[in-house]
Amino acid sequence: MIRSLYYVPGQPIQKDLPPEKFPELTQNQQSVLWVDFISEPPDVSQPILEKFGFHPLAIDDALQETHVPRLDDWGDYLYIVFNYMNFKLEDDDWESEVDELDVFLGKNYIVTHHDHQISAVDDTWVVCDRDQRNVQEGADHILYRITDHLMSAYMPAVEKIDEAIDQLEDQVFHNPSPRILEKLFSLKRVLLAMRRVIIPQREVLNKLARDDFQVIDRKDRVFFRDIYDHLVRLHDLNESLRDIVGGVQDTYLSSVNNRMNEIMKTLTVITVLFMPLTFLTGYFGMNFFEPLGNLKEWTTTPVFYLTLAVILLLPVGMFIWFRRRTWL
Amino acid sequence: MIRSLYYVPGQPIQKDLPPEKFPELTQNQQSVLWVDFISEPPDVSQPILEKFGFHPLAIDDALQETHVPRLDDWGDYLYIVFNYMNFKLEDDDWESEVDELDVFLGKNYIVTHHDHQISAVDDTWVVCDRDQRNVQEGADHILYRITDHLMSAYMPAVEKIDEAIDQLEDQVFHNPSPRILEKLFSLKRVLLAMRRVIIPQREVLNKLARDDFQVIDRKDRVFFRDIYDHLVRLHDLNESLRDIVGGVQDTYLSSVNNRMNEIMKTLTVITVLFMPLTFLTGYFGMNFFEPLGNLKEWTTTPVFYLTLAVILLLPVGMFIWFRRRTWL
Amino acid sequence: MIRSLYYVPGQPIQKDLPPEKFPELTQNQQSVLWVDFISEPPDVSQPILEKFGFHPLAIDDALQETHVPRLDDWGDYLYIVFNYMNFKLEDDDWESEVDELDVFLGKNYIVTHHDHQISAVDDTWVVCDRDQRNVQEGADHILYRITDHLMSAYMPAVEKIDEAIDQLEDQVFHNPSPRILEKLFSLKRVLLAMRRVIIPQREVLNKLARDDFQVIDRKDRVFFRDIYDHLVRLHDLNESLRDIVGGVQDTYLSSVNNRMNEIMKTLTVITVLFMPLTFLTGYFGMNFFEPLGNLKEWTTTPVFYLTLAVILLLPVGMFIWFRRRTWL
Amino acid sequence: MIRSLYYVPGQPIQKDLPPEKFPELTQNQQSVLWVDFISEPPDVSQPILEKFGFHPLAIDDALQETHVPRLDDWGDYLYIVFNYMNFKLEDDDWESEVDELDVFLGKNYIVTHHDHQISAVDDTWVVCDRDQRNVQEGADHILYRITDHLMSAYMPAVEKIDEAIDQLEDQVFHNPSPRILEKLFSLKRVLLAMRRVIIPQREVLNKLARDDFQVIDRKDRVFFRDIYDHLVRLHDLNESLRDIVGGVQDTYLSSVNNRMNEIMKTLTVITVLFMPLTFLTGYFGMNFFEPLGNLKEWTTTPVFYLTLAVILLLPVGMFIWFRRRTWL
Amino acid sequence: MIRSLYYVPGQPIQKDLPPEKFPELTQNQQSVLWVDFISEPPDVSQPILEKFGFHPLAIDDALQETHVPRLDDWGDYLYIVFNYMNFKLEDDDWESEVDELDVFLGKNYIVTHHDHQISAVDDTWVVCDRDQRNVQEGADHILYRITDHLMSAYMPAVEKIDEAIDQLEDQVFHNPSPRILEKLFSLKRVLLAMRRVIIPQREVLNKLARDDFQVIDRKDRVFFRDIYDHLVRLHDLNESLRDIVGGVQDTYLSSVNNRMNEIMKTLTVITVLFMPLTFLTGYFGMNFFEPLGNLKEWTTTPVFYLTLAVILLLPVGMFIWFRRRTWL
Repeated sequence: MIRSLYYVPGQPIQKDLPPEKFPELTQNQQSVLWVDFISEPPDVSQPILEKFGFHPLAIDDALQETHVPRLDDWGDYLYIVFNYMNFKLEDDDWESEVDELDVFLGKNYIVTHHDHQISAVDDTWVVCDRDQRNVQEGADHILYRITDHLMSAYMPAVEKIDEAIDQLEDQVFHNPSPRILEKLFSLKRVLLAMRRVIIPQREVLNKLARDDFQVIDRKDRVFFRDIYDHLVRLHDLNESLRDIVGGVQDTYLSSVNNRMNEIMKTLTVITVLFMPLTFLTGYFGMNFFEPLGNLKEWTTTPVFYLTLAVILLLPVGMFIWFRRRTWL
Repeated sequence: MIRSLYYVPGQPIQKDLPPEKFPELTQNQQSVLWVDFISEPPDVSQPILEKFGFHPLAIDDALQETHVPRLDDWGDYLYIVFNYMNFKLEDDDWESEVDELDVFLGKNYIVTHHDHQISAVDDTWVVCDRDQRNVQEGADHILYRITDHLMSAYMPAVEKIDEAIDQLEDQVFHNPSPRILEKLFSLKRVLLAMRRVIIPQREVLNKLARDDFQVIDRKDRVFFRDIYDHLVRLHDLNESLRDIVGGVQDTYLSSVNNRMNEIMKTLTVITVLFMPLTFLTGYFGMNFFEPLGNLKEWTTTPVFYLTLAVILLLPVGMFIWFRRRTWL
Repeated sequence: MIRSLYYVPGQPIQKDLPPEKFPELTQNQQSVLWVDFISEPPDVSQPILEKFGFHPLAIDDALQETHVPRLDDWGDYLYIVFNYMNFKLEDDDWESEVDELDVFLGKNYIVTHHDHQISAVDDTWVVCDRDQRNVQEGADHILYRITDHLMSAYMPAVEKIDEAIDQLEDQVFHNPSPRILEKLFSLKRVLLAMRRVIIPQREVLNKLARDDFQVIDRKDRVFFRDIYDHLVRLHDLNESLRDIVGGVQDTYLSSVNNRMNEIMKTLTVITVLFMPLTFLTGYFGMNFFEPLGNLKEWTTTPVFYLTLAVILLLPVGMFIWFRRRTWL
Repeated sequence: MIRSLYYVPGQPIQKDLPPEKFPELTQNQQSVLWVDFISEPPDVSQPILEKFGFHPLAIDDALQETHVPRLDDWGDYLYIVFNYMNFKLEDDDWESEVDELDVFLGKNYIVTHHDHQISAVDDTWVVCDRDQRNVQEGADHILYRITDHLMSAYMPAVEKIDEAIDQLEDQVFHNPSPRILEKLFSLKRVLLAMRRVIIPQREVLNKLARDDFQVIDRKDRVFFRDIYDHLVRLHDLNESLRDIVGGVQDTYLSSVNNRMNEIMKTLTVITVLFMPLTFLTGYFGMNFFEPLGNLKEWTTTPVFYLTLAVILLLPVGMFIWFRRRTWL
Repeated sequence: MIRSLYYVPGQPIQKDLPPEKFPELTQNQQSVLWVDFISEPPDVSQPILEKFGFHPLAIDDALQETHVPRLDDWGDYLYIVFNYMNFKLEDDDWESEVDELDVFLGKNYIVTHHDHQISAVDDTWVVCDRDQRNVQEGADHILYRITDHLMSAYMPAVEKIDEAIDQLEDQVFHNPSPRILEKLFSLKRVLLAMRRVIIPQREVLNKLARDDFQVIDRKDRVFFRDIYDHLVRLHDLNESLRDIVGGVQDTYLSSVNNRMNEIMKTLTVITVLFMPLTFLTGYFGMNFFEPLGNLKEWTTTPVFYLTLAVILLLPVGMFIWFRRRTWL
């Protein structure tokens, strides 16, 4: 789908103009034109983009969907690639998908190109459509609005991840199960993916905020600076969360280790307690002491009670000895 | 709460002036004005801040409470975000909270904005109120005083953490319990949080000490340089403490490992000592040697004493053999 | 094998000219000459390269095959080393081999030298041969085409590796075998090798895209910029994949650990359940209770049923106790 | 204690002049003055330092004892903080303490301030006192001598640590005890502490060797360059030693692991050898085979010898089987 | 030993000139002088070096043998420290030793100073002696030849290490022994030592190749550039090898872990198979079932055959159950 929005000072906003008129419309330096390509096939988009006079390489990049965030300065227009992430829970595991938004920003026009519906673009579109004051501040201000929406979407996701980590942290000390580890791995992967998107994005915003581009008003740079600061904070939060996930993983491993120790201790104590007793009963089970044998003095009643006493007192003694060695 | 403090050379300090007069007061280049917002709702603070002529983005940032320390130079005023940490012990675990102090510093005024009571601000307020010489050195000097107080608060916390680590270190070699690990994790998290606050704060102070700002006297830069050095040292201490915590964790794991080894050794020794004996008693318990059977020569008295000798000497021999292999 | 391709504006492309005429041909500033050495012995290539006037050190480097990607600017020509990787599966393990392509790029000529057939060079050769428009854009454009082909070859390999990792990841949770670890190690080694090739290659492309070389048209730099961006993305993907391989390794170790724990638990439970029972049976097997002995009251029928009850109920009780301690 | 040393060309060296004359003495540009404060209380040192005209912040820093090495350029004097370490063995564990030396270096005077006796300062004092040629080269040369002494003191310590590591390395393969690990931890901590002192110190020397300070002769910079190179080497050695300590720790863990494996193997082999035998003896101990029972054919003499053969041959067979599986 | 080699255009090479004539000889700008000190005691070398007019600090550094590679520019001469490594196998473990070569390079002379015979120097000496064309290219060219020889010596060592690692890698999967780990540690240490030598050496060559020194011809810089590239590659190879050693170590640990698991499994299976059987035989060994007792119905022939069936079938059943849980 292609939609367009055209503003000339003193006139109402026009919408959905024929693509062949775009180049002509941008001639009017006072006007602002926004063209939005939504999941349009490349063979439709390409000729329209070419009419704007964009470099073939930039058009190629816009039509393909496999780029990291980046900003190319082509003089009278900028080519910018943004990434945005979709987070979802699948089988209780976190997953993330990265999609792409390509932007061509000229002095008085902005062209956005994306394969999927993006709420950040739709919301800005509605705002611009409703109130033309939002358009008259210029194409770079529209870019600011879209970017601001795009970046605000990360925060709720980060907060949900934070909560999920907190829950796992509570469980890990008292009930460490392999499932927790699986969940931690999925969280870690999502955080790593986010980091990989945020860092180059931050670089793009840094350039928009600091570099001197022909198509961006000096006074509008502070707005991009604001988004840049937001991304710095996001990156910071991401680092913190990854640190915490790492800490929870360590806790898990040490928790599992403690349980293992406890189990081994139990095994050892039981073995140590019963081995001598079993030997003793075996000893008196030998056929030397048969009633018809010659060693009847071993199986008299006093010996029995002595044996019984050993059977009862040996475990008690051992138990006390273990306590002293702080094993129990 | 909003409080204000106004100094004009040759006059006594005036306090709690009406907010609507602030812009007018700052016209007098010789005067010094300090306005302090304490947990004031945004809808009250916003119009007052706007009257100072601050940029809407800076005001927005001041009213929200989620920023990393940073310094924005807006020409005739600076917007600075400081963070400060509160440390507390909860269930014997260290916890930390980060709060924010926003400062607008003009040539002859300073505006501070915070959501919670901050003793660093209060102390400076008292000092300025008591002796007007502290005010007449200018707004940047007030900023220095606040910052100095703010940063001094970290040292006692660091020292307490240091002590806590020392205690854990003593316990870990002789009585490693999972509780120690839990405490180490909580200390590590606090140190990581502190690091995340100190690094950008250090950057802010570095800028105050080195960059050429319109609102800071060249000769006052050395004061900020001093705080900067303090933060460098704090960061250094923090790194050391984190290294030591890491070392104690390693010690813990190796301590637990040693105990595990000791337990396994005991299990093995006991098993190895008793298994042959149990077999032997079993052997002579077989019904081949019944008094009515044909194998009476196996259960004669000499054989019994031979068996008894084996039962007594075998463990002794094994024990000696273990010693030789340095198992015990 | 030496093959050559010579273009003069307005004439058809000439092929396989005698090597001794090369220097003379390059005198015509309008012409474009491409000479390709394929697994030619050094003693044949050396004199021909010397006739071009290349520095002896550059020729030496071209004839040897052990260099990292790099670019030397010799003023009126560039000496560039590219590496390319061949990936193959050997016994189901990934292996990689690095080969080298040396390029001398002059204003109106390009000399390529390689020891093995390279499809990127062959394909470009066919394209140039078929349509002389591809040649007339200049020697630097031929370099662009070769480089573009060379770098595109990595993507399918990366995708296959990605798939292989995905498969291993599925297996690792449910059936961790040492074989998986071996495969992960081979994947990791391939990714490390790729990284070592991509990073200096990226640097070469960065120079081609940004530096001001005599032999590269300013307007052609954007093409190299495009390949550079491709390499940035490749490097990024490589990092991600290595992170994921690391994650799968951790999962493997924790999976193996879990199985170990399960086994130890079973051992302990069995031992703990049967040890007391074995003791009990041993107790009543002692010869004190012989029919002719004095302790017949121990082996009466009621005692037997009591013993039987203990033998049946003790394991049940222990099982319940284990459940409570969440061991089972 | 305060001591001073004053040199005017052509006159003998004067010592221990009254502090109130210091400022006046430094007026003579040809003279050299060295004042040394040794564990002097702050309230005595402060007024004397103030008379030199040093900045209050610099004096504050000198009187406190908690700084990292650093160099402040105050124009006509430098304020330099050096750290030096004392190493000692406590209960056979390495410990280290960091002390501080503060230096004010003017064009023709040097002021040193320290809380403890420092042999580097004392030695230089003696040398200057004995032969006035050492003083006439200027205040910066005195600084060079002190620094050189200070840094030379690290080398013997590093060599002792090197030896200690070598000894532990020999022990670790053949007799790994937890004590070794404790010692390694103490060595690691000392090396980390040393690193933390050396790095900023190196930076200070780098500045002295490269930056253009008013109070340091251009031609004297090479001397500081020499100490700088010494510190680079020290840092290098420190890194090596830490690497080696890390390697010994790994060796220790793997050594302990090997012993654990050996113990587990022994346990398993013993269990596996005796379990079937014990079962067998138990089997023939059952009361089915009582002389009065009906199953006498199970306890005949041939069966006994068959059983005996199994008892003797089964362990041998198992032993051979273990060997084949390379367990023993 | 001191040897010298002196070339004046148009004259045959003179050798072993008296040291006192060296300064005078270097006056002739067309001549080339090479002086080589081999394990000469400092008190002999020092006065000769002083006659060249070298700075005392540089002479000191040359006479001591504890420096990292480095280059000092003293204007009309360079002082350069090279390190070279000797690799040897001791008890089948790799060891390495680092020795030092000090070079003073003037416009028309080169002074080399070393404590041990160095083949790189000897070979260059022979080449220069045999053919005076090698000398007439100047002192910087002699330096190039020595350095080239010195650096070429690393490659064969690296290749041998590579082979050694390959062998260990083959062994580690099928026969992991602690000996392998010991060898890996020794290889790692050698690679670390090599890295520590290569990195500063690379820096020295980088300076020789790029910086503008009075004593090095601009056109000779490309030769040093070539050695620099060689060192870059060496460093790269070193990193790869260290990565691979790390990988083999991980494989070793996981291999050992797998064996441990196998052993534990065997122990558990044997215990689990025999414990119930041993209980059963114990049960029927109790004296309740004596021929004269009241519970004869428990020891009748059918019960025996039932018991026998349980004894034979229980292990089979358990074995099948283990298989299902993929334990065997």
